[in-house]
Amino acid sequence: MGDKGNLIIGQSGGPTMVINQSLIGAVFEALKYDEIEGIYGMQNGVQGLLEEKIVDLRKESKETLEKVASSPGAALGSCRYKPSKEDCEKIFNICKKYNIRYFFYIGGNDTAETANILNEIATEANYELRIFHIPKTIDNDLRETDHCPGYGSAARYVSLLFKGDNLDNLSLKGIKLNIVMGRNAGWLTAASALAREKEGDGPHLIYVPERPVSMDKIVNDIDEVYKKYGRALVAVSEGLRNTDGELMLKSKLTEKDAYGNVQLSGSGALGDFLASEIKARLGGKLRVRADTLGYAQRSFFGVVSEVDAREAREVGAAAVKYAMKGEMRGSVIIKRTGNGKNYAVETGFTQLEKVARVTKDLPDEFIKGENDITDAFIEYATPLVGKLPQTGRLNFYSIK
Amino acid sequence: MGDKGNLIIGQSGGPTMVINQSLIGAVFEALKYDEIEGIYGMQNGVQGLLEEKIVDLRKESKETLEKVASSPGAALGSCRYKPSKEDCEKIFNICKKYNIRYFFYIGGNDTAETANILNEIATEANYELRIFHIPKTIDNDLRETDHCPGYGSAARYVSLLFKGDNLDNLSLKGIKLNIVMGRNAGWLTAASALAREKEGDGPHLIYVPERPVSMDKIVNDIDEVYKKYGRALVAVSEGLRNTDGELMLKSKLTEKDAYGNVQLSGSGALGDFLASEIKARLGGKLRVRADTLGYAQRSFFGVVSEVDAREAREVGAAAVKYAMKGEMRGSVIIKRTGNGKNYAVETGFTQLEKVARVTKDLPDEFIKGENDITDAFIEYATPLVGKLPQTGRLNFYSIK
Repeated sequence: MGDKGNLIIGQSGGPTMVINQSLIGAVFEALKYDEIEGIYGMQNGVQGLLEEKIVDLRKESKETLEKVASSPGAALGSCRYKPSKEDCEKIFNICKKYNIRYFFYIGGNDTAETANILNEIATEANYELRIFHIPKTIDNDLRETDHCPGYGSAARYVSLLFKGDNLDNLSLKGIKLNIVMGRNAGWLTAASALAREKEGDGPHLIYVPERPVSMDKIVNDIDEVYKKYGRALVAVSEGLRNTDGELMLKSKLTEKDAYGNVQLSGSGALGDFLASEIKARLGGKLRVRADTLGYAQRSFFGVVSEVDAREAREVGAAAVKYAMKGEMRGSVIIKRTGNGKNYAVETGFTQLEKVARVTKDLPDEFIKGENDITDAFIEYATPLVGKLPQTGRLNFYSIK
Repeated sequence: MGDKGNLIIGQSGGPTMVINQSLIGAVFEALKYDEIEGIYGMQNGVQGLLEEKIVDLRKESKETLEKVASSPGAALGSCRYKPSKEDCEKIFNICKKYNIRYFFYIGGNDTAETANILNEIATEANYELRIFHIPKTIDNDLRETDHCPGYGSAARYVSLLFKGDNLDNLSLKGIKLNIVMGRNAGWLTAASALAREKEGDGPHLIYVPERPVSMDKIVNDIDEVYKKYGRALVAVSEGLRNTDGELMLKSKLTEKDAYGNVQLSGSGALGDFLASEIKARLGGKLRVRADTLGYAQRSFFGVVSEVDAREAREVGAAAVKYAMKGEMRGSVIIKRTGNGKNYAVETGFTQLEKVARVTKDLPDEFIKGENDITDAFIEYATPLVGKLPQTGRLNFYSIK
């Protein structure tokens, strides 16, 4: 058991559809312990904490917390702020000032890094501050964990979108590209494969950052698919790389975020570039369209994977449990203990430094050639996304 | 009662999430009449019919038809083909060859025009061919009808997307533009207003084609909102016009469809253009993002307005009923007979020439100034979209 003291929790990075499940899971768990006095929230993550923007979560009704849990966005506000060493010293002093003994930070690998630095400062100062990173990311690219809360719901949205777009593309044939989020890893783009129900269904081609590809190859692939089916539905990661290993649109993209990452989302540039290249090379009369799926992948209201929502809440609760059991620090992970119809998970935790900074690509066994995804990936992702509705098709019976 | 003969039905133009409800509504109704022998489908509308691509819908199981009804896309295949007078003569001869006496065409105003021309030929030849246009369009811009099947579901998707994006934008503040479908009319863009739940919720600004606007005005509007809320969520119609009444991106857009309409969808150009203009004028450090909502607005699988689905089926059935009652031609319309909690509709029909070619803008009473939508629109659109889930928010209670 820890000392009596206050708990603080914050949210960082891009929101997900279930990031508030983790927040509320942690709050509900915290309410069970007498050692935890105040249950505080940072507004806008560590950026708000630096300005002592701290709110009282104990005063929220259970009903409000449940409604927040099922809403997208980061209810506490988020930030993309990478604290300097000096900032971390300041945060540490704020923790001391408010007698904060339990510190939880929901976010991606950058967030884990912040938690790690803060942990080092507290340890050096011999101040008992239990710090846990609670994972979230639609990118699913955190190490150590089987998968990340937030991914299943984003993958469900992408799958449903591709199911509908496949029927749209069957109705009015042409070449359709959909640009999917994923700067470094193709996890979310790969989820488009879950949309396939029948032979001939799209996406017919899936390009992920893990497999650099030339424009010639893309054009030839599409040409082949088009000759076979009279149409082509193509999934492309926003982080698509050319054979030099560079972003397809590198020269055009100059804006970087606080972590030095190039800005890819919130722009239709890659899709428009690819569409015009394909059109120019395959013939001007072809119907080529590109949609860039956008922020709805992480924030659409009304499409959530039930499994993802449940696990996100469990992961939030688990962080508090570990801290209350006496663990000083860590990053919560999900371990898969059963697959397919027997899908089951349990939570665990790992060292912060194993999660901080690094990312996890799609492994080779999930990628087929340069333009497709394997059955092993389908098996991996299916339980995370949940049961998907099936579309209906006419049989086109002859009138004779 | 008509002569014994065969019925044919086809789908045209951009699909909707409920266009198959109309198809299946017509088929189920047709099954009730002994005078109707064959129940045929055109593959890919009149374009397929010209090649005698005709399928037998009687052979489909009820279960298949029900699954098709609840799937997006045009199950028979669609087309954007505008038949010439010569084509219409050929179609007429195919109707005679197959003893087709009942002709139903599901589509927008271009589709009504095709039906109208075909009707004139049949009348001149003294051939009894009953022709009905069954309306569909996510654009909601058909005349005579209170609203169009397909609109409610697309509007529901847009509303849910904006609800989520509003929370996303609250989490990580900045300027966010969402480009919504609607070439000539702002109906779908206006539906973004249904996302608002509380004071300060986005969309904060809504630009529709009915109100031409200068870039200066847009930039000033956004600047004001940003100063007030520290963020701005903006809905923009793809058909946005400048103060000369021209499309904002006219010079860049050269591709036209078969009806001479400029191609606007399937490209991120307008959003990217606006985002870079705003960024340049308001300061380079601002976080400005643009998403172009894309084909998911008409084809996403899993978000349907129940009211829209039901009405789309009724409209399909109504077309067959009118034809069997002896009406020779017409376009089915929806009349609103009750509003608010007493929302109710009945079907009717009007002359084809009243629907063909022309479109219906947002009326003045639905538009507030140059950048917003009125409560009268909210009242109009709410029943079409159906009950929307409400998001949860923290109260940000002070810890003192």
